[in-house]
Amino acid sequence: MQTQLASLYGPVAEDMILVEDLLEATKQVSLSPLKRMLDHALEARGKRLRPALVLLSGAFGDYNLNKLVPLGAAIELLHTASLVHDDVVDGAESRRGRPTANSMFDNALTVLLGDYMFANAAELVTRTGSLAVTRLFALALMKMTSGELDQDAAAFDVGKDIQGYLWRIGGKTAALFANATEGGAELGGCQAETVEALRTYGYSLGMAFQIVDDILDFNGDEETMGKPVGSDLLEGTLTLPGLLLLERYPVDNPIKKFFAARRGRDERLQEAIQAVRSTEVLDVSMDMAREYVRRATDAIGTLPNTDAKRSLVDIGEYVLSRRS
Amino acid sequence: MQTQLASLYGPVAEDMILVEDLLEATKQVSLSPLKRMLDHALEARGKRLRPALVLLSGAFGDYNLNKLVPLGAAIELLHTASLVHDDVVDGAESRRGRPTANSMFDNALTVLLGDYMFANAAELVTRTGSLAVTRLFALALMKMTSGELDQDAAAFDVGKDIQGYLWRIGGKTAALFANATEGGAELGGCQAETVEALRTYGYSLGMAFQIVDDILDFNGDEETMGKPVGSDLLEGTLTLPGLLLLERYPVDNPIKKFFAARRGRDERLQEAIQAVRSTEVLDVSMDMAREYVRRATDAIGTLPNTDAKRSLVDIGEYVLSRRS
Repeated sequence: MQTQLASLYGPVAEDMILVEDLLEATKQVSLSPLKRMLDHALEARGKRLRPALVLLSGAFGDYNLNKLVPLGAAIELLHTASLVHDDVVDGAESRRGRPTANSMFDNALTVLLGDYMFANAAELVTRTGSLAVTRLFALALMKMTSGELDQDAAAFDVGKDIQGYLWRIGGKTAALFANATEGGAELGGCQAETVEALRTYGYSLGMAFQIVDDILDFNGDEETMGKPVGSDLLEGTLTLPGLLLLERYPVDNPIKKFFAARRGRDERLQEAIQAVRSTEVLDVSMDMAREYVRRATDAIGTLPNTDAKRSLVDIGEYVLSRRS
Repeated sequence: MQTQLASLYGPVAEDMILVEDLLEATKQVSLSPLKRMLDHALEARGKRLRPALVLLSGAFGDYNLNKLVPLGAAIELLHTASLVHDDVVDGAESRRGRPTANSMFDNALTVLLGDYMFANAAELVTRTGSLAVTRLFALALMKMTSGELDQDAAAFDVGKDIQGYLWRIGGKTAALFANATEGGAELGGCQAETVEALRTYGYSLGMAFQIVDDILDFNGDEETMGKPVGSDLLEGTLTLPGLLLLERYPVDNPIKKFFAARRGRDERLQEAIQAVRSTEVLDVSMDMAREYVRRATDAIGTLPNTDAKRSLVDIGEYVLSRRS
């Protein structure tokens, strides 16, 4: 996987080590309980997709790593911090196949760990030397938490529609992808149209990314995913496949039954998962993800055909094909 | 009280309404669960001491409200957000005599509420137009959470010393006071020595403020305080009075007994509170608070004798005399 990603990130692959170094440096704190928790939270290396998008977007202008690397690290740290808090919020036991921070430490310490990481991310972003990019970063976090809040407030509510879902994932996921590409382009000193094109690319890619995530929650492999199938439904979160099932099969709907069940919840959950898998709703969801990737690719259509652009196009394909 | 504060804040008292307006504006969000929670969190108006310090410090230079007001509002919002998370961390039921956010909504939503407020605070601080001040703000939040984390990790540990306590309150409280005065002076374009003098003032004032807070937790009036006496001990937090009691009366110490108690905890708690009250440790603690206020006043000794300076001196006295 890491090799695949290296080729995917093309012209910036080697520079990604600088992002890694900066993230590593954030763990060097003297307070031992904090150090222990940071080590845990940052141990599971994700795909580093967001920092790669920062660097690739910066490559459309003045490719200055002194600015791009701090933004990349800041966005990855913010992303990790938001996962730390999400796991507290959801009471999740495992992520990426490892125990969550809240399951190892207590909720209280984990909330503070996330706060510390948010603050450190904000500090990193000021190292870009750009107040405009720092501001965009803060706004992205406002959108992320709004999206998460709306999702949490809507839990177990079968009256929600797909438009609300798109708003929520626009906040909780796409806003940070958009921040990565817009911020990278801005730091590169790109022209306004290029910044806007890359922002749209990032936003649309983020939408596709989240939809695929939500599909994988139904048909993914538990081992590859590192979390149980159906975990969204279990928490009462209705994502695109479930919303489509409710919309298309309103009568005797197994999701409604699961949400209403007081007994035999495990069995009801399996029935709901099975219904999603056996109907067309996963295919329809995938079509929607594909449509977002098309929008992403279209947005950067007029940009020069560089290695960076080829990488961005490849990343679009990767997002659709990923299994974890 | 509000009248007393108005006279205390002297030359900036009238301008504080602008901070209030900006805080009010942060509540105007379209997402209804978020709006409801923000209304609750920002309803209980505190003393607004930190924004007042920003404006007063700015008055030593170019008093530009377009910069000072966003910093004041950002710091107050950050402070409120940290209280929201602290209450989740402590499982607190009431604060300032009102139910806490976590007791009204659930912990999950309250964590996200705090995150949103942190992000909004970061966005506000970028409106100062100063990247340096934005960076100081992020660093202050890192110190705050480190101090809180250390406090939480040290809960129920009778082996901690006073030096560690001073480090913790330096982070959890004094860092933000220092950020208010240093940031205000920096935005005012003050000379380096003036910025440093005001930073030291803010830090020392914050230390005194927290020590008095910790004293009031033992001898304050529950109704005026809006929380039960002894709430720190109940959570296992050892503050200055308790640490002094442990240091001076190590044998048969009622705090040790309370921390070790499996039965009759209420009674043991009352005994510990009584021991703190009946010995000299509250007076010794107060002497230490006085010493910090002296340091604060000394730090600004050479600054011009303006109305703003008189206010800062008065605030030092107020911090020592406050009952809530």
